[in-house]
Amino acid sequence: MVSSLRLPSLTSLFSSPSILRPPPLLCRPHHHHHHKLSFPPPLPLTAAFSSQTTSASTTENPKKQTNQDQKVITPRSHDFNAWYLDIIANAELADYGPVRGTMVIRPYGYAIWEAIQDYLNVKFKETGHSNMYFPQFIPFSFIEKEASHVEGFSPELALVTIGGGKELEEKLVVRPTSETIVNHMFTQWIHSYRDLPLMVNQWANVTRWEMRTKPFVRTLEFLWQEGHTAHANSEEAEKEALQMIDVYTKFAYEHAAIPVIAGRKSKAETFAGADRTYTIEAMMGDRKALQAGTSHNLGQNFSRAFGTQFMDENGERQHVWQTSWAVSTRFVGGIIMTHGDDSGLMLPPKVAPIQVVIVPIWKKEDEKTGVLNAASSVKNILQSAGIKVKLDDTDQRTPGWKFNFWEMKGVPLRIEIGPRDVLSASVVISRRDVPGKQGKVFGISMEPSILEAYVKDKLDEIQSSLLGRATSFRDSNIVDVSSYDELKAAITLGKWARGPWSASDADEQRVKEETGATIRCFPFEQPQGTKTCLMTGSPAEEVAIFAKSY
Amino acid sequence: MVSSLRLPSLTSLFSSPSILRPPPLLCRPHHHHHHKLSFPPPLPLTAAFSSQTTSASTTENPKKQTNQDQKVITPRSHDFNAWYLDIIANAELADYGPVRGTMVIRPYGYAIWEAIQDYLNVKFKETGHSNMYFPQFIPFSFIEKEASHVEGFSPELALVTIGGGKELEEKLVVRPTSETIVNHMFTQWIHSYRDLPLMVNQWANVTRWEMRTKPFVRTLEFLWQEGHTAHANSEEAEKEALQMIDVYTKFAYEHAAIPVIAGRKSKAETFAGADRTYTIEAMMGDRKALQAGTSHNLGQNFSRAFGTQFMDENGERQHVWQTSWAVSTRFVGGIIMTHGDDSGLMLPPKVAPIQVVIVPIWKKEDEKTGVLNAASSVKNILQSAGIKVKLDDTDQRTPGWKFNFWEMKGVPLRIEIGPRDVLSASVVISRRDVPGKQGKVFGISMEPSILEAYVKDKLDEIQSSLLGRATSFRDSNIVDVSSYDELKAAITLGKWARGPWSASDADEQRVKEETGATIRCFPFEQPQGTKTCLMTGSPAEEVAIFAKSY
Repeated sequence: MVSSLRLPSLTSLFSSPSILRPPPLLCRPHHHHHHKLSFPPPLPLTAAFSSQTTSASTTENPKKQTNQDQKVITPRSHDFNAWYLDIIANAELADYGPVRGTMVIRPYGYAIWEAIQDYLNVKFKETGHSNMYFPQFIPFSFIEKEASHVEGFSPELALVTIGGGKELEEKLVVRPTSETIVNHMFTQWIHSYRDLPLMVNQWANVTRWEMRTKPFVRTLEFLWQEGHTAHANSEEAEKEALQMIDVYTKFAYEHAAIPVIAGRKSKAETFAGADRTYTIEAMMGDRKALQAGTSHNLGQNFSRAFGTQFMDENGERQHVWQTSWAVSTRFVGGIIMTHGDDSGLMLPPKVAPIQVVIVPIWKKEDEKTGVLNAASSVKNILQSAGIKVKLDDTDQRTPGWKFNFWEMKGVPLRIEIGPRDVLSASVVISRRDVPGKQGKVFGISMEPSILEAYVKDKLDEIQSSLLGRATSFRDSNIVDVSSYDELKAAITLGKWARGPWSASDADEQRVKEETGATIRCFPFEQPQGTKTCLMTGSPAEEVAIFAKSY
Repeated sequence: MVSSLRLPSLTSLFSSPSILRPPPLLCRPHHHHHHKLSFPPPLPLTAAFSSQTTSASTTENPKKQTNQDQKVITPRSHDFNAWYLDIIANAELADYGPVRGTMVIRPYGYAIWEAIQDYLNVKFKETGHSNMYFPQFIPFSFIEKEASHVEGFSPELALVTIGGGKELEEKLVVRPTSETIVNHMFTQWIHSYRDLPLMVNQWANVTRWEMRTKPFVRTLEFLWQEGHTAHANSEEAEKEALQMIDVYTKFAYEHAAIPVIAGRKSKAETFAGADRTYTIEAMMGDRKALQAGTSHNLGQNFSRAFGTQFMDENGERQHVWQTSWAVSTRFVGGIIMTHGDDSGLMLPPKVAPIQVVIVPIWKKEDEKTGVLNAASSVKNILQSAGIKVKLDDTDQRTPGWKFNFWEMKGVPLRIEIGPRDVLSASVVISRRDVPGKQGKVFGISMEPSILEAYVKDKLDEIQSSLLGRATSFRDSNIVDVSSYDELKAAITLGKWARGPWSASDADEQRVKEETGATIRCFPFEQPQGTKTCLMTGSPAEEVAIFAKSY
């Protein structure tokens, strides 16, 4: 179906590196901010964040030079954080809100979140959960009811003290999470074992007064889903908590192309109020770990604190067994930091708001109509095949500028159509994940069934290629260690250390203080054989993974 | 396809009124509330609201008698408000939150909201809008920038004054609406006419410190979508504001089966900060008006206050022209109050979480398997046809109890299957909107294509029947008036008054004070001919509609 024998088309005019990528500006202008922003670190490069968010079609601002305003991204290897912030700004994923630590999620970033929502929402319903909505204002006294919960959350609370012009009698907490108000309501809805299991979910905003914030990864307000369930016995609650971490794991692998490691948190890292916390841990491009989703077996901690009881089959009152589980907009940050490169964002096709961008190419005015007609027909072919496609037909930008721009936005496939392509009824297709000529194939027929099959096939290939690449990266950066010295060496190299662990909480704390690494999890997948604790030399039942984290 | 000649099946055992509807309890027990609730009015009947929310399957609570616990709904004609609150409690649509005036939206109520979201979300995207998300915390100073905006909203604000354990330097407003923060961000994104139009929407929670609250209709926190757009000229903004009120109107008619009247608000009723507000006004079952959606032409009010400017094609700086538009969870209240009757909720098929409920009926144990198999096969047939179907196969309840329960939940169609139906491979189908035998048809074949076609046809019929009924009700309760006396008489009768109006704001205020009615809108559809103001006798260009409202 595919011919790669064709001579380079007109599109090759634009593939010379000097045109494709304008030389980086050594000094970018610093812009003045209306409001103080404190996302760390305060590097000069990052100061341009919210001021460099003009859309691609902005060309008339006389301060900008039409062909010189291509956004420049700090190389990833130079400064990972600056690179991350540059991508968020330049790909128009998010911007700072006026209040310190808050984030405006822009349409392109929000569309990634919508892809996450669309997948999870279906899975939640398939697994028997219903969506609902709990109020975000929680009486302050509720937070105090579960001892470890208040300890965990009280430093991070935003409090409403004035309503309708009057000082309130009781301060209201803007929800940091909803276990307390959920239990308050569950006590009213649960009476008998027949009311169980009760399995609900809400999509909501939550607020945590974080001191060190970073777009998507940690913001004062963020969006998430929080599942809450109540069960008649411990086994069911455990099964549910495991089921939901499995839903998250599948999403991470199959859609976000992130090879997370699923496992159990150590006691020290368990959610405030949970018996057990399960987690998926993702390795970012800088090899730091990102906790990308958690599922908690809450045991009876909240039901005892709130009196959430049911009459069992023998007519005896028992406290319910509960779970909660959440994935947030942080996941968008995980996608950026897993796949992005020096050219910008790189999106797995299954979460990409635009899977294919079409760039029409013409030089003379008499070529324009033919090229645009062909481009438009290609767009329709792909669109009716259910592919998310964008035709960038503005004549305000050169094709080279568009190539860079859409690469930077992480669009998986680019289709180029020039006058010669129109004559041969074929197109040129470039992969975002394979740079330069290697990722470019000429002469793909415009015949609908051929084109559709080719594009779908390529998207699948990119999807699994991104997962494969991230998996290799992950695996080459996890070191098996059998002593504390080896652990320290691995962490110093920026890697993850995996080793048998049965030492004390105090030892875990010591590792944290001395290396900056924490136990990310005891992975579900455990090596065979007997194990000896890397710290104490005592027998160990499990290996743990240690890493620095976000 | 349909035979109505069949003899009554076993199901008729359950259709005797005395079995179907247990006699109302004259005194229902009052339950104690943990927290003070202040949804008005504090009638005894409404006190049972949050305590009567046990699900249908709860039978083991020894305080309840298994066959006597069918929920009783206050007759609509006796006390419309108590009827409304009873439906919300008994159909498990919502419950009170622990904080005064807040509401928990339960799965069944939330599913109606999801149906609204699903429709509108597609329409918003089709009309060129992107979803995004703005932070909910707004610096207090922002609210003060637009003069009429602060006047309108400042009495209703919830303020965060403490964050992370510290008193904040500047109080933060929990968004009551987002025009101010939207404009703050728009100033950073809009530079040139090429950045326009900018058209976004967000699905979000908002907070207004209302003193008199009522579930769905007016709550301290509610869910909504708010669209925000910026345009290069006044005409485009006006066109957009009109387009979006039209989207809402179509939704109301075609999905919610609510024959709203669309029109323009009077100056006194215009949104705080808008030049013009368009509205859809719905007549509830008690003939009060519900403002069900609004679309504002904001002119340059916010862009001047925030300095949201663009360079036009001639290189001159201009302020953008803006719109905003919103529909909220209030719409769910509108659906309840438009269609419900003494038996409970009545849902238009297009917004019903369950469109068809299947009730299997058996007396002897040896009938059970056959009946359940048939019921399950019918369920599969309908489900694969894309119909939202529920099989209520619990043996904890009698069929009569189930009939009442699902009627009360407003499910449009009920399918009954008994042993005789299994033998004849047919089912009995009852319409929620046509009570008793008239709405019941026997002998509908279980053959998939016949059953599917029949059910789809009936659902369409119910959908248009509900709209037709609501339209007749509306039209028979709007009185054309030509004098203030006639207006007062109409309002006294509880009707809407429509008459020519060109009087002053002071006259409008006087009508409000003297009759309790306000101008709901100047409808888009205007009668022909010359008009004389009902108040002043001067020439008038338009008729206005006056009514009492929620």
